[in-house]
Amino acid sequence: MRIIRFDYSGRSGFGFLTDDGIMPVAWEPFYETPIESFLIPLSEVNILAPVEPTKIVAVGLNYMDHAEELGMPIPEEPVLFLKAPNTLIGDGDIVIYPQQSERVDYEAELAVVIGKHAKSVPEKDATSYVLGYSCGMDITARDLQAVDGQWTRSKNFDTFCPLGPWVETEADPSDLWIELRLNGEVRQSSRTSNMIFNVPKLISFISSVMTLYPGDVILTGTPSGVGQVHKGDVIEMTIEDIGTLRVSVG
Amino acid sequence: MRIIRFDYSGRSGFGFLTDDGIMPVAWEPFYETPIESFLIPLSEVNILAPVEPTKIVAVGLNYMDHAEELGMPIPEEPVLFLKAPNTLIGDGDIVIYPQQSERVDYEAELAVVIGKHAKSVPEKDATSYVLGYSCGMDITARDLQAVDGQWTRSKNFDTFCPLGPWVETEADPSDLWIELRLNGEVRQSSRTSNMIFNVPKLISFISSVMTLYPGDVILTGTPSGVGQVHKGDVIEMTIEDIGTLRVSVG
Repeated sequence: MRIIRFDYSGRSGFGFLTDDGIMPVAWEPFYETPIESFLIPLSEVNILAPVEPTKIVAVGLNYMDHAEELGMPIPEEPVLFLKAPNTLIGDGDIVIYPQQSERVDYEAELAVVIGKHAKSVPEKDATSYVLGYSCGMDITARDLQAVDGQWTRSKNFDTFCPLGPWVETEADPSDLWIELRLNGEVRQSSRTSNMIFNVPKLISFISSVMTLYPGDVILTGTPSGVGQVHKGDVIEMTIEDIGTLRVSVG
Repeated sequence: MRIIRFDYSGRSGFGFLTDDGIMPVAWEPFYETPIESFLIPLSEVNILAPVEPTKIVAVGLNYMDHAEELGMPIPEEPVLFLKAPNTLIGDGDIVIYPQQSERVDYEAELAVVIGKHAKSVPEKDATSYVLGYSCGMDITARDLQAVDGQWTRSKNFDTFCPLGPWVETEADPSDLWIELRLNGEVRQSSRTSNMIFNVPKLISFISSVMTLYPGDVILTGTPSGVGQVHKGDVIEMTIEDIGTLRVSVG
């Protein structure tokens, strides 16, 4: 099932995407069944990021190929950082290039959307806490990341977390093809099986520190091939069985 | 005026604290006038952290005395990090000592609570975007902070951001006495005039990166004298013209 969030006639809400249009649901898609019997044509809505998280927890170096590319040792534990909700934009939106930076990079990542309250969850139960999966980009002002030491400023400019186009509830995250194209040219191409810490390990590790709430997002790290964007670029990423997320840089 | 948030008979809400009790207000204290004509005795409520932020933005080394104590150069720009809302607890609550850490520290900080949507705010207008001020603690697992490099895990365990007891809307943040006592013994004592980047500078700097929303919190850094806590300790901090926040460690 595909859960989307949309703006329709000035009112935002969640819905299930069907072949014939959007079936609107109650505000919290995590607990409710559809409450509206009509369908809204996809062409009549503005698609929003399909989540309203209390936090977005991101993982640093988490792909074997990216670690090899950088010649860095494999970390013993996941390195975490946070992106705040102000960073979220949806499919078709614009990443605003901040005037403070001269080097902004794309990073394509599998996004895990949490479905229920998760605290110190064991690995073996972890995926039962997942609502679904989406495409996420961890846009990064690389020059400020180097200057600051802490990664907060460089990764938290408004619009620096494109996410979508929907939450796919049926995917198996263990071995999905993930690709990013810049202006149509393939720049990142890997499989989620190259993750150093897989999705169950990440949920278990993170939930032993921070309680995860429905709608919270985990960005699971990026494969090799990260690189720079410029104003006017189109960034497109696809994850197998999930979909394609496309944004531009303005 | 003092704005508190409380749980009363299983229902949480905001209110104004008067000498005779709490005057409940509509859910958003930022826009509404009181809607209830009765007063709830303070003794009958459970006090909660007085904010429901989308993010808590914290500032690293921001006191002259703390920089001198550590022999570190004065930073040219504020160093930011984030604490997620799962860290919040209120006055009288318990900081849970995480099993992953063997060294947890207190840090007393002036908390700024944002009152309206703030994007790229100039310094001269910055305080008009403030709802009020509160006492905040940036509890930190110091051993994990050193291991991780990034400060996210060490500062984001559940209960690691005591905040309260209320939001004081009338304080002038420029030169307030700030003190922390551990089991009754003074450990931190300074004035907010020792900040390297003052409150208007911080609001301007942060809002040029991330849009700030009503209820968002800025933790403005800690003075010298940080140190370790143990289970059973009582941590109490006071800021002049604001109040006293008291939590224990469990």
